[in-house]
Amino acid sequence: MTSNREIHLASRPRGWPTEENFRLVETEVPTPGPGQIVVRNQYLSVDPYMRGRMNDVKSYVPPYALDAPLDGGAIGEVVASEAEGIAVGDTVLHGLGWREYALLDATAARTVDPSLAPVSAYLSVLGMTGMTAYAGLLEVAAMKPGETVFVSAAAGAVGSLVGQIAKLKGAGRVVGSAGSPAKVERLRALGFDAAFDYHDGPVRDSLKAAAPDGVDVYFDNVGGDHLEAAISAMNLHGRAAICGMIAQYNDTEPPAAPRNLALVVGKRLTLRGFLVRDHGDVREAFVRDVAGWLREGRLSYDETIVDGIENAPAAFLGLLRGDNLGKMLVRV
Amino acid sequence: MTSNREIHLASRPRGWPTEENFRLVETEVPTPGPGQIVVRNQYLSVDPYMRGRMNDVKSYVPPYALDAPLDGGAIGEVVASEAEGIAVGDTVLHGLGWREYALLDATAARTVDPSLAPVSAYLSVLGMTGMTAYAGLLEVAAMKPGETVFVSAAAGAVGSLVGQIAKLKGAGRVVGSAGSPAKVERLRALGFDAAFDYHDGPVRDSLKAAAPDGVDVYFDNVGGDHLEAAISAMNLHGRAAICGMIAQYNDTEPPAAPRNLALVVGKRLTLRGFLVRDHGDVREAFVRDVAGWLREGRLSYDETIVDGIENAPAAFLGLLRGDNLGKMLVRV
Repeated sequence: MTSNREIHLASRPRGWPTEENFRLVETEVPTPGPGQIVVRNQYLSVDPYMRGRMNDVKSYVPPYALDAPLDGGAIGEVVASEAEGIAVGDTVLHGLGWREYALLDATAARTVDPSLAPVSAYLSVLGMTGMTAYAGLLEVAAMKPGETVFVSAAAGAVGSLVGQIAKLKGAGRVVGSAGSPAKVERLRALGFDAAFDYHDGPVRDSLKAAAPDGVDVYFDNVGGDHLEAAISAMNLHGRAAICGMIAQYNDTEPPAAPRNLALVVGKRLTLRGFLVRDHGDVREAFVRDVAGWLREGRLSYDETIVDGIENAPAAFLGLLRGDNLGKMLVRV
Repeated sequence: MTSNREIHLASRPRGWPTEENFRLVETEVPTPGPGQIVVRNQYLSVDPYMRGRMNDVKSYVPPYALDAPLDGGAIGEVVASEAEGIAVGDTVLHGLGWREYALLDATAARTVDPSLAPVSAYLSVLGMTGMTAYAGLLEVAAMKPGETVFVSAAAGAVGSLVGQIAKLKGAGRVVGSAGSPAKVERLRALGFDAAFDYHDGPVRDSLKAAAPDGVDVYFDNVGGDHLEAAISAMNLHGRAAICGMIAQYNDTEPPAAPRNLALVVGKRLTLRGFLVRDHGDVREAFVRDVAGWLREGRLSYDETIVDGIENAPAAFLGLLRGDNLGKMLVRV
């Protein structure tokens, strides 16, 4: 084996991160102890929530440590095993990304079948990304057929699946917002009934034009003015599933919006934050539905692939800027 | 009969209302047509939501018309009836307050038994006020025994019942905020485990001291900095039942808070606005529980009574300033 390379957090970003917050570190390829495996990572998942873990604040996951490798979803091939039930050559999903070789307890890895789908799909449509879209839309927001759904960051990994799943589950109208004309074009190709570029004017105005009869379900990936616009547009008994607020992850001042929250009373709105980890109960339905839709060619998923562990920080910065279409991945 | 006096909306308030926005108008006592009754009002309900109806904006109830009588909950004695099933002398609950005599279709009135409770109680603890507290706490926020509950405007009509009902239903700790030392004292007498005057410092700090282990349920009557503080204090899977936001009803600029809304994701919080009208399904349990607690002397309700229809505007302005302890009523 050759040496191992991994990305460390060199310093905590204030506001927007830069390349200087990261450091490429060369180490030895680890050797497994009893019950352990070593995985040569093939794909690393790059996700917005990672920004929060770069701050030194208490949250639902501990902050990343300084001068230590970052972590996150990854998939790869087992190259050494001292564990029962996992063999060299197996493909496994695990949580130690941001490095070329991962040493982990076999219990922290899940074996997947690489012949069923491209392995990268296990980090996107068939993985946490897809299940976030599915659980948020159908369980947290409890979308019903005929309803109007609005999703922000709709050309992103989660958003593009939310919109398509909404249509597949009978939504009356699906509206998405995104950050470029090309993304808006892509949303139309994916079957969104309407889409707009949020740079084109106040979100509130664009949303009103795209959903003239109001919004029943809002899937929030953005926060800020998107959430404010959605609250204004929501119909009686509307529900917002709040998945993330990427618009403000790099803010150094608390955001001013939404300023119209009092509307939740008269309209009886529900705003509900969620993490996919609480929704394991939908896994069975999720796998059945999504595998079926993929087989039938009714569900598309986009990937933006950056090559090389050394470019993982650039991939992450690109994700925060919205450079990606669909899932942002690093191919090792 | 003598003449009838009623309060008209003379002009729409901008920001805080003043006496000049109201006008006392003398009219004739009406005569009932077929199916109608005339009620001599005894008590008028004075409620925060009425402020919203003084604006000319679309909402869950239509705005009050200019130069016409205001309306709202009232209870009184039938003095003329052309309707089957309602007799002169009956006590009825109805929606045409802000006047001495009300003419209405009998179908819009509900007969109550004045021997069971003081008639004013049908506008407070036994009426919409009590049911708002009950449904919001137990159904919307789904409070469970052992949880910590925080309620704002806790010395008000709804808030003081929320706190007491929480204790009666097994809450582990009940915390209230109010606007004066006398109100805080009253909350302690009502059985709140902790109470603070929100003038004494940042709500966030006071709440943290009063609920060191965090808040599971927040019953919001205030909005603004109270809601922001509650979001910061809430534990995983916390729920906020949003009943009203009196802090901002007179604002002429949209409020900036809450600026910490992104916390709803990691903590998986639910914020839910509600109106009691959607929760008729709890009426039976509400009546059974509350009537029982009143009979056993386990539930107290405060009333602040202002005499004379001509003082109804002053009573309303006092309510907005927080002059009341418990339910604000006008005795006609």
